[in-house]
Amino acid sequence: MKHGGDLTEALARHGGEPADWLDLSTGINPWPWTIPHPIPDSAWTRLPSRADEDGLLLAARKAYGVPDDAGIVAAAGTQTLIQWIPYLAGAGAVAIVTPTYGEHSAAWRTGGREIIAVNDLSALPERAVHAVIVNPNNPDGHAADGRALRDVAERLDRRGGWLVIDEAFADVDPGISAAGMSADLPILVLRSFGKFYGLAGIRLGFVIGRRDIVERIAAALGPWPVSGPALHVGAAALRDRSWADAMRVKLARQSGRLDHVLTAAGLHLVGGTMLFRLAFHPDALRLHAELARRHIWCRSFDWAREWLRFGLASDDGLNRLASAFRSIG
Amino acid sequence: MKHGGDLTEALARHGGEPADWLDLSTGINPWPWTIPHPIPDSAWTRLPSRADEDGLLLAARKAYGVPDDAGIVAAAGTQTLIQWIPYLAGAGAVAIVTPTYGEHSAAWRTGGREIIAVNDLSALPERAVHAVIVNPNNPDGHAADGRALRDVAERLDRRGGWLVIDEAFADVDPGISAAGMSADLPILVLRSFGKFYGLAGIRLGFVIGRRDIVERIAAALGPWPVSGPALHVGAAALRDRSWADAMRVKLARQSGRLDHVLTAAGLHLVGGTMLFRLAFHPDALRLHAELARRHIWCRSFDWAREWLRFGLASDDGLNRLASAFRSIG
Repeated sequence: MKHGGDLTEALARHGGEPADWLDLSTGINPWPWTIPHPIPDSAWTRLPSRADEDGLLLAARKAYGVPDDAGIVAAAGTQTLIQWIPYLAGAGAVAIVTPTYGEHSAAWRTGGREIIAVNDLSALPERAVHAVIVNPNNPDGHAADGRALRDVAERLDRRGGWLVIDEAFADVDPGISAAGMSADLPILVLRSFGKFYGLAGIRLGFVIGRRDIVERIAAALGPWPVSGPALHVGAAALRDRSWADAMRVKLARQSGRLDHVLTAAGLHLVGGTMLFRLAFHPDALRLHAELARRHIWCRSFDWAREWLRFGLASDDGLNRLASAFRSIG
Repeated sequence: MKHGGDLTEALARHGGEPADWLDLSTGINPWPWTIPHPIPDSAWTRLPSRADEDGLLLAARKAYGVPDDAGIVAAAGTQTLIQWIPYLAGAGAVAIVTPTYGEHSAAWRTGGREIIAVNDLSALPERAVHAVIVNPNNPDGHAADGRALRDVAERLDRRGGWLVIDEAFADVDPGISAAGMSADLPILVLRSFGKFYGLAGIRLGFVIGRRDIVERIAAALGPWPVSGPALHVGAAALRDRSWADAMRVKLARQSGRLDHVLTAAGLHLVGGTMLFRLAFHPDALRLHAELARRHIWCRSFDWAREWLRFGLASDDGLNRLASAFRSIG
């Protein structure tokens, strides 16, 4: 299982219909922003216009606190941006703060780059021209210090490099964002729309950064990188500040309840964000298999066999999880 | 006006609401395939699964006549593929058969490649490692000879190069497709979903080619390149063969009626496909401006000031166009 959120393998091994499964394998908000129906026909039939794109970017600027003198561009998911950046960054090796979301190193490897795994940005080696950090980190939720991020960006700037900060899970803790530093430093902030808004299928993400860098990325993406429905839904959702405020409260409450279920079952919390929790169990892989037999799908890790990651669930889902734990014993 | 289909500029110059305009500036079918409502919530909320993607690709293989031993990958519009190809092709110059859709040369230029404009594939210079042809061509509708395409692909193969064949408008004339030759030769066939199916906002396109090349492109695109709604709608539409057969008949009829309106107004047909017609008029730019004043938007060309391109319209739209021509005199 390479990623969360894909039940294809779970269904093949353990049967059942997708609707039978309690999918806790993702960090996607299970309470999506409600799409206003109907989406106008023109969003499907016409090529997105510049006016549509401008409307989305304006909403994103406000939601993400983008300085006026920084650039922002939208793409069909931040994964698309993760794929492009290694092809557009200047020559040189990249340091990636690990362990983290695996697609950063996969993309730099596909792009033919040397990758240096580091445990902390303070351990940045001299030969690293670029660096990547996920903040807060997936899966452990670790938050980097803002001052340290600025120092690293200044060092990389002198090397002609970029600091990529993947803020896929920063919506739950907006104060963490480095967007405010991105106008003057070679910081590229990635913001995922689908996780916090619970609409991962829509494929929408953003990169925020120095205007010259963002323009280079925009040129590589070319025209019409985002679908009409994503432009329409994304702009409306990003303008809905009261939903976002209320959702942060709800996620805080449900992640607390999830913690309670996990610790009651004898797991130890390692970390996480308000969209997923990381827990330790000495026999985590057996637990993963037993849960799967009960059609509950959480996330295990090849490289950390005593960790399991759990996404959030409704109270019903949490009750089901708790009783599954009790039946496993 | 760089592209058809974006009324932003037309509205800024000539006012009106988008709904007031008769937009003939695109080659997008104005009779879209009907989206089955509702699209399942999971298409919006979940990350697309491998099973979803496999379903789309199977439907595309059948619709486009892809040989079993050729590869196919989906992207968020063929434009995305046009953007990536210059970054993934081996070193060397590209010959582009011109005049044609401008985004091919724009993308190879952004990718830092030398571009050699040629009028015909038979004029392929020795130093061209790669070649691009739009078939049938946009805007003139010119169809390349299949035997000539194979010869060029064989020559480029010996140079380690690729032949990109953009079949954005091939749905109206499936016999033209080079997909059947793509398993053994370095031919990359681009297929656009949105034009023929009238759903350009959905962002869906395909590249068909030799498995090793397609796998390289898929690795660059990364996971989840296509949205959940596009996977859902695309698979269903591509399986609907009776709609496609009936639509070809309808497009043939309406393009014939459009020809009649254009020639009655004193324009001379230069070419086109069943999704757009290219016409000559000695005073084409004045005609373009007069039509725009009447909120009819067609496509003019910086580099061919006596040409106008017209997309298809309903009978009502054709009557409006005909009476506009009469009032211009």
